[in-house]
Amino acid sequence: MEIATINGGVTAPKGFKAVGVRCGIKKQGLDLALIYSEFECSAAAVFTTNVFKAAPVLLDMERLRTGKARAVVVNSGNANACTGTQGMINAQRTAEIAGEALGIPAEQVFVASTGIIGVQLPMEKIEAGVRQAALQLSETGGESAALAIMTTDTKPKIAAREIEIGGRAVRIGGICKGAGMICPNMATMLCFITTDASIDHHTLQKSLAQNVEISFNSLTVDGDMSTNDSVIALANGMSGCTQLLEGSPEYALFDRTMGEICLELAREIAMDGEGATKYVEVRVTNAASYQDAKAAAMTIANSPLVKTAIFGEDPNWGRILCAAGRSSAKIVPSKVSLSFGDVRIVENGEPLNLDPEVARKPMLERNLVITLDLGIGEENATVMTCDFSYDYVKINAEYHT
Amino acid sequence: MEIATINGGVTAPKGFKAVGVRCGIKKQGLDLALIYSEFECSAAAVFTTNVFKAAPVLLDMERLRTGKARAVVVNSGNANACTGTQGMINAQRTAEIAGEALGIPAEQVFVASTGIIGVQLPMEKIEAGVRQAALQLSETGGESAALAIMTTDTKPKIAAREIEIGGRAVRIGGICKGAGMICPNMATMLCFITTDASIDHHTLQKSLAQNVEISFNSLTVDGDMSTNDSVIALANGMSGCTQLLEGSPEYALFDRTMGEICLELAREIAMDGEGATKYVEVRVTNAASYQDAKAAAMTIANSPLVKTAIFGEDPNWGRILCAAGRSSAKIVPSKVSLSFGDVRIVENGEPLNLDPEVARKPMLERNLVITLDLGIGEENATVMTCDFSYDYVKINAEYHT
Repeated sequence: MEIATINGGVTAPKGFKAVGVRCGIKKQGLDLALIYSEFECSAAAVFTTNVFKAAPVLLDMERLRTGKARAVVVNSGNANACTGTQGMINAQRTAEIAGEALGIPAEQVFVASTGIIGVQLPMEKIEAGVRQAALQLSETGGESAALAIMTTDTKPKIAAREIEIGGRAVRIGGICKGAGMICPNMATMLCFITTDASIDHHTLQKSLAQNVEISFNSLTVDGDMSTNDSVIALANGMSGCTQLLEGSPEYALFDRTMGEICLELAREIAMDGEGATKYVEVRVTNAASYQDAKAAAMTIANSPLVKTAIFGEDPNWGRILCAAGRSSAKIVPSKVSLSFGDVRIVENGEPLNLDPEVARKPMLERNLVITLDLGIGEENATVMTCDFSYDYVKINAEYHT
Repeated sequence: MEIATINGGVTAPKGFKAVGVRCGIKKQGLDLALIYSEFECSAAAVFTTNVFKAAPVLLDMERLRTGKARAVVVNSGNANACTGTQGMINAQRTAEIAGEALGIPAEQVFVASTGIIGVQLPMEKIEAGVRQAALQLSETGGESAALAIMTTDTKPKIAAREIEIGGRAVRIGGICKGAGMICPNMATMLCFITTDASIDHHTLQKSLAQNVEISFNSLTVDGDMSTNDSVIALANGMSGCTQLLEGSPEYALFDRTMGEICLELAREIAMDGEGATKYVEVRVTNAASYQDAKAAAMTIANSPLVKTAIFGEDPNWGRILCAAGRSSAKIVPSKVSLSFGDVRIVENGEPLNLDPEVARKPMLERNLVITLDLGIGEENATVMTCDFSYDYVKINAEYHT
């Protein structure tokens, strides 16, 4: 097999250690993760475009300029967002503590946070947690790290792949968290990817950014984008493979593998959406442009009317056309066709007036694919999402500050 | 009083008659309304911008070119949307039947529909209903017309005002319906306004369009825009007032009164939002542009996380900043202040760390005003909305086709 699925998450690649520990921010469970590379890494990252960026995001954006890093500290239970000057001091201090504990410059430590906003980090707990984590780092710690970054996630999200480049085994591993924006104030999408490939900062950044666009940026639970969303990738070169150069077949294979990791993790987030009972892929095909395809797919995937109909297993195709029709996509109504799974519902703008039970059958499955063929171009986009249930309202209404 | 509130809705102005009858499209209740003017009217209208426009909308857009009309036929229970060529024939035929019954040209009849989509209008029922309605038109029929256009609305929505222009009493009346997009496929926002003012088509269109922008277009229940949304205004001049000319003080008073009608009706829609337990006004102030203020207010008002927090009476200010931060509005975080009612929560980007019970107090009321002061300009916008409850999901998930 060209791309093999393996275990281990962020500790699958050579030279990476990780661990998740409990420092006491959350009411229970692991709440601090540390990821560490034995050698200096090329670093790449993609951050939230929200105007209100949390302190750790602002710090990491600064860090990213050097293109180098060795470690990431992540806490759950507190987002360190909307925390002003003290929040920046605390993010900086977290990196310093990790640097001291690991014997590396603070400038080589990324930080990430997820949880309640508007509350300062409990720095004594953070300090104790980071020091404990530095002592417990392990080559099999990928799973406990995945547990420690969870908030309302119901399960850890882990992926890893192995490929061969010039006779050397090259690995990419990742962990992520995210389930909507939530309790008690908001949560976040965080993802950490490690690889032992040899690749420079710019090339890694390019691969990461392209793959984030079709995975994490093509994913929506409720349309809300957090102040903390971050995807960070570290490459330490310890596989011993030759340097990956853009345009080479080796880079192409690496890039495709990076895509598999990102897609698998993004799908796990959609499947674990707050209160979700269905996983939904909205595919918009034959659009005039990729931007059009993406805009139509996103508007459908974010429509509360579409999402509640899917929860109700109602083949309510009118709501889907209607959502597409208010997006910015160029649409010619008479060219549009729509399918649920393999069942064609609308063809060239005219409903096929199927037996409602036939139309409804694909809606009864756990996984639903909605395909909207715009019939006017050659560009496609897929957005991953989930339905909107009573539990979504419950989860988001009942957690008071 | 300069602008007096009166009763009667669309039959408050002189020379207008209306009625609501039952023709049998809905399972129960009135489902066909007819509005008629004794004299030819200047007509104005604003329609949905959705790419998928229902047949009656396409017909009315054609009608509007002449700027003249005498009557409007409205049915509830069937939207005549996504009905192809037959749908256009049926919309046209509905206008012809009304023209015959009223003794006026079909070209002077607007039509509007709301209800299920993808199903052809039952033309026998429509024909019988229109003929019956034409016989029952009455100068006190505004209320029954308001009842006949309802779908999932829990109450009719009616407004009327009287002003004095040159010693003549001039009246404006309106009815509307809308509560979200719904059962069993989708509903719609429809509004019909009548006036006995003397005003030409272009001036009426200008007043209507401006006032729709700050009322019906500043209203969101779930962010979905239907295929049928229409606001239609008719002015028959029967008050005997002088012709209203743009720029005159008389026009200014008329325009302000039109604004009151539109705002009152739009507020009633928000208050009657599907499953709503709270009425919410999101005011964004001191933005760099009106577009920025509106974009930020709309993004906040459409955020499922904000709407579920309001349902949960949770003063979750982080979700509000976060929603504003992902809108297209220009925002400088350190300039932003946020209040719930009169309670200031965030000032110049820093949370004031209030006692949670103090912050929560305004959330316990039936009506909530959220004010986000961007602090960088002089433009303001207000968006009306409601919260997101279990019942919203129930209403929209449980009605199968």
